[in-house]
Amino acid sequence: MTPFTDKQTERITQVGEIGLIQKISNWLGSVSPPAPYGMGDDCAVIESLATERQIITVDTVTFAQHFDDSIAPEHVGSKLIKRNLSDIAAMGGTPKHAVLALICGADLAMPWLERFFDGVRTSCIHYDIQLVGGDISRISDGNFSAVLTLTGIVETPKLRSGATIGDHIYVTGSLGGSILAKHYRFEPRLSEGQWLAQNSKCTALMDLTDGLSKDLKSLLPANAHAALELDHIPIANDARSLAKISGRSAHEHAFSDGEDYELLFTLDAAADSTLFESKWQAHFQATPLSHIGNIRDDASNGHLINARTNTALPWTRGFEHLKAE
Amino acid sequence: MTPFTDKQTERITQVGEIGLIQKISNWLGSVSPPAPYGMGDDCAVIESLATERQIITVDTVTFAQHFDDSIAPEHVGSKLIKRNLSDIAAMGGTPKHAVLALICGADLAMPWLERFFDGVRTSCIHYDIQLVGGDISRISDGNFSAVLTLTGIVETPKLRSGATIGDHIYVTGSLGGSILAKHYRFEPRLSEGQWLAQNSKCTALMDLTDGLSKDLKSLLPANAHAALELDHIPIANDARSLAKISGRSAHEHAFSDGEDYELLFTLDAAADSTLFESKWQAHFQATPLSHIGNIRDDASNGHLINARTNTALPWTRGFEHLKAE
Repeated sequence: MTPFTDKQTERITQVGEIGLIQKISNWLGSVSPPAPYGMGDDCAVIESLATERQIITVDTVTFAQHFDDSIAPEHVGSKLIKRNLSDIAAMGGTPKHAVLALICGADLAMPWLERFFDGVRTSCIHYDIQLVGGDISRISDGNFSAVLTLTGIVETPKLRSGATIGDHIYVTGSLGGSILAKHYRFEPRLSEGQWLAQNSKCTALMDLTDGLSKDLKSLLPANAHAALELDHIPIANDARSLAKISGRSAHEHAFSDGEDYELLFTLDAAADSTLFESKWQAHFQATPLSHIGNIRDDASNGHLINARTNTALPWTRGFEHLKAE
Repeated sequence: MTPFTDKQTERITQVGEIGLIQKISNWLGSVSPPAPYGMGDDCAVIESLATERQIITVDTVTFAQHFDDSIAPEHVGSKLIKRNLSDIAAMGGTPKHAVLALICGADLAMPWLERFFDGVRTSCIHYDIQLVGGDISRISDGNFSAVLTLTGIVETPKLRSGATIGDHIYVTGSLGGSILAKHYRFEPRLSEGQWLAQNSKCTALMDLTDGLSKDLKSLLPANAHAALELDHIPIANDARSLAKISGRSAHEHAFSDGEDYELLFTLDAAADSTLFESKWQAHFQATPLSHIGNIRDDASNGHLINARTNTALPWTRGFEHLKAE
């Protein structure tokens, strides 16, 4: 469904700002608490967070960049929430409060926007998020962006830094081919992230958004490489489907496509990896876990190395948000 | 200066996402703390806020809506920060942490963006804000939006609700004509807001962004009106200048133009307004204060009433963000 319309009666400009805010408040229902804890005052008030640490992240969905006419509006709304949740999961946090900025062309269609908010509301309820404030502004016709800032709490955040030489490298789920469906149909790994944050053997944690080849570098200590077992890379079925038509290998899709929204983490070299994996299975039967390699000393041959042949892997690029055409 | 360029070498796409994030980090300097307290991990970590309450707000600057080629990029950057600060001031808060989302056409020019961040950095330093995270995404050429989410702390937030019949209505500074300069050249009223938040006689507080005629309604209790002394409305010189060429009165500009970024508040009907005003003068010599009227019972003749003639004021509309063309 396209976000835009030629019908004057359906345009966002027809209802005006105050009317639109009222409609959004109705669409959101219980997800939008009353002022001062939600919309309606100059800021939203968040009561004391006591001794927990707060975490904060911001992510965007933009028309033609993160979705197009082929995606149902509800899925665009839920994708916005879940993109941010994947960042909260990657710190081991629990989501709490969000604010939402909409940037809309005058030709944005109210029926599209209502369904977008249906996705926002459903996801906020599902993940126990309160949407406490927002902003609406105008951009040129045919454009739509939504920016969500999401806060969470966490006792001890699990960071990207912390991995050392010898650590085991793990990834959840399967990788590649997300453009076929997973880029909006995914489950942020919140429970898994929270469990890992409390496990002292987990040395570093992040989520995969730009593809393994780009993101894995963020976990490596200086002058280290990832020695990867290609047989252990969990290749998604959609990566194999894409490979049949793209002329690129399924491995390349798994390494480079991005928008996997899986967790990538390291386990202390001294930890019992078999014991760890059996504990994982006991907690998360439905979430596949793959031990894809280890961190090794020296980066002179590159950061991503085939562990069998000791040669650099050819897939070094991930999703590039600002590529020139 | 226009944000966009035809020169391939100056385009944002030329540096790529990782290069751009590195440049932004350099441009921001000390305003951008190291991970995990700033950019570089999946979320930014904010240490415990102890017993204070947190407040949160989000605001946007969009090309062609909030600024155009005539505005220096530094002023666009500082306007983004100060728009949000005005909301923090309107709760009586102290600003703390911010995250920034950029939505850029591929033709966005790096020299423009560098100067934009110069304004962001300078304002963050001036107001002691830490910019702890962000997001960059792509939109169609010729477009630019920046969305800032700003948090603050406050012991007792001063809300919009709280005014009752008889309360005195006050406004700071002067109103109208902001399009000539004030829409980006203004000082958020942080000290004044903090002082008011600690004054139990101040019953309600907000900032003026859409114009007095639209915003004042937010402070009125149900079934009440504002009886206003037109002689006491602080009309800005720029409102008088505009009136000479617009064919509308200076009063209309003062009531309807918006982007004043002044404080509007109410004082308890039982308070000694003369004593209050002399205390204000002692604290804020440089910030004019005007007692523009009082809240009165009954809204059957409208919400904004001329106190002398007891007739409805003709200026009922403020700035409309989503008006149809």
